[in-house]
Amino acid sequence: MQTRPYNFSAGPAAMPDDVLRQAAAEMLDWHGSGMSVMEMSHRGVHFGRIIEQAETDLRELLGVPADYHVLFMQGGALAENAIVPLNLSRAAKADYVVTGAWSQKSQLEARKYCDVHLAAQVDASHGYDRIPPLHTWQPRPDAQYLHYCANETIDGVEFHDVPGRFGLPLVADMSSTILSRPVDVAAHTCIYAGAQKNIGPAGLTLVIVHRDAVGHAIPACPSAFDYAVAARNGSMYNTPPTYAIYIAGLVFQWLKRQTEGSLQGIAAIAERNRKKAELLYRCIDASALYYNRVAKPDRSRMNVPFFLRDETLNEAFLQGAQSRGLLQLKGHKSVGGMRASIYNAMPLAGVQALVDYMQAFERDH
Amino acid sequence: MQTRPYNFSAGPAAMPDDVLRQAAAEMLDWHGSGMSVMEMSHRGVHFGRIIEQAETDLRELLGVPADYHVLFMQGGALAENAIVPLNLSRAAKADYVVTGAWSQKSQLEARKYCDVHLAAQVDASHGYDRIPPLHTWQPRPDAQYLHYCANETIDGVEFHDVPGRFGLPLVADMSSTILSRPVDVAAHTCIYAGAQKNIGPAGLTLVIVHRDAVGHAIPACPSAFDYAVAARNGSMYNTPPTYAIYIAGLVFQWLKRQTEGSLQGIAAIAERNRKKAELLYRCIDASALYYNRVAKPDRSRMNVPFFLRDETLNEAFLQGAQSRGLLQLKGHKSVGGMRASIYNAMPLAGVQALVDYMQAFERDH
Repeated sequence: MQTRPYNFSAGPAAMPDDVLRQAAAEMLDWHGSGMSVMEMSHRGVHFGRIIEQAETDLRELLGVPADYHVLFMQGGALAENAIVPLNLSRAAKADYVVTGAWSQKSQLEARKYCDVHLAAQVDASHGYDRIPPLHTWQPRPDAQYLHYCANETIDGVEFHDVPGRFGLPLVADMSSTILSRPVDVAAHTCIYAGAQKNIGPAGLTLVIVHRDAVGHAIPACPSAFDYAVAARNGSMYNTPPTYAIYIAGLVFQWLKRQTEGSLQGIAAIAERNRKKAELLYRCIDASALYYNRVAKPDRSRMNVPFFLRDETLNEAFLQGAQSRGLLQLKGHKSVGGMRASIYNAMPLAGVQALVDYMQAFERDH
Repeated sequence: MQTRPYNFSAGPAAMPDDVLRQAAAEMLDWHGSGMSVMEMSHRGVHFGRIIEQAETDLRELLGVPADYHVLFMQGGALAENAIVPLNLSRAAKADYVVTGAWSQKSQLEARKYCDVHLAAQVDASHGYDRIPPLHTWQPRPDAQYLHYCANETIDGVEFHDVPGRFGLPLVADMSSTILSRPVDVAAHTCIYAGAQKNIGPAGLTLVIVHRDAVGHAIPACPSAFDYAVAARNGSMYNTPPTYAIYIAGLVFQWLKRQTEGSLQGIAAIAERNRKKAELLYRCIDASALYYNRVAKPDRSRMNVPFFLRDETLNEAFLQGAQSRGLLQLKGHKSVGGMRASIYNAMPLAGVQALVDYMQAFERDH
């Protein structure tokens, strides 16, 4: 039963009620330890159990092969824009595909550390609205890796499959799509994600990286952000964000409960997400007031930006939404308009409530 | 009233019960917002109020002058070992004082980015047990800064005053002493601290840096860790660890309540901490079983390492402590023995309970 408003924030984003309730109940005493998780030594037996279970559950949910490290780090995807080339570029060549604001930031930051080439990009003069066709991509065969952003949180552009590999190690920023659908981890050499969308609280960064890719950081790489150092120390070279890892672990457990009785695992989550997105896009496409400018096959199932043809109605739209318990719908300041982020924790009923409101608002204006 | 065990962890460490209770109560709905703090956009009005209040309270508690930035960052003190020289060394000369395991790590990491000279160090063949006399320090007059660790969490060695400035900008790692006593912020160009001792959850790093010191990062500095970028964006260039900042804010409010009715502010906290440390050191010094090897004037008031002359009793000591609700007393693995961390959240009654137990254990063995 929904007792709280529906929160469409792009991140930090809505968490499952069950997770928050459990966290509140355990706040002063985790499992009879006499301690809050916040108060535990990261090297103690209790937290050891927490981080181990979180890693096990994540590996199960995503099907992470055994020859990949799972690292719990800090700094978010923006820090990874530097940390990835520091670890993986060998100060040589790295290729990037630009499909939105996030991959654009990634390639700009990488230029500090290596020779960057844009294997593909979109003319963004009218906004990022599609993925360039794969046959137009021109990565360099001697690049150390090919980087793409699996879901552009601001622009609402998503890769629904792994793009061609072009014979290169693939690196993906999956911040706003991870755990929303099955991912072929083995097709990538490195996947990273800020936690604050589908994983848990801001301040935790998840890195999944192939064993053979670590250990080649360039000298300028801070030890705390060297994947090899993090892996060797079980993510405890620097004190990890313990409480955020604990919450992420609760989210993983929640996801497993959601998929119980289903042989599909995370595919069942993906199906639910597909339905949510479909409902919302159908409403937008059927409307004379709202529009979304992303090419249909490339539309994000997590972040749905939409605009009102009459922008003078924006404020009224947001106020009406707020008063109906539909929160944080304002679009990113760089693109304007609206954005509904509908991550795993958003139920279909929340999307339905938004659609009902959008239709009522259109009728009334 | 104490209802939970006493937790002597060095960090992540005990939190005030009041703070945990409030966090639990507000977990699903912060101040009628309908959201957990974990779920709020960092750019929204609600979180804006939280971070602003946290900064205001911190500035008041520490007396931070207006020409200093207060930055909420990520990575902990270990990441700062790189981030400080990336920001402040100009790839030139930087001088370090080594008084324990932490400052030793700091100077080693800094060598990646600049020309490091040890202005003073202790012969650590028998452990770090004192601060080298100031008249023996030999910093280079053309160093960009002089770095020291105000409190060595592992070794239990603490500077109780700002060391001489030697005409150089001072940089201090204050992770395990910040907010435990008044600090002359203006005597430093930069102070940094991992949060997980006296501030809040692991994963938050506090940086207090003079305005004029930022803006000179070397090219290898990741944008997310460039103090100037963080300052320009109000700590929101990358998504900050919002929940940890919220908890830190609750701790600051708790500290203010502790010092209410006192004109002294944080000096009242310091006096309480002095009494706690005195009680424990007196017990150790009066004992035939326990000893602490740090020179008396340099002993830490936050981290009290002690050893049993008969080390075969270590296990029995720890087990007895655990059964009496005295938790996480095992010393750091690199030095062995015991360590009682008695940060702000540890009441005098907790130290008294430890002393009572230590005396009983000595009588029984």
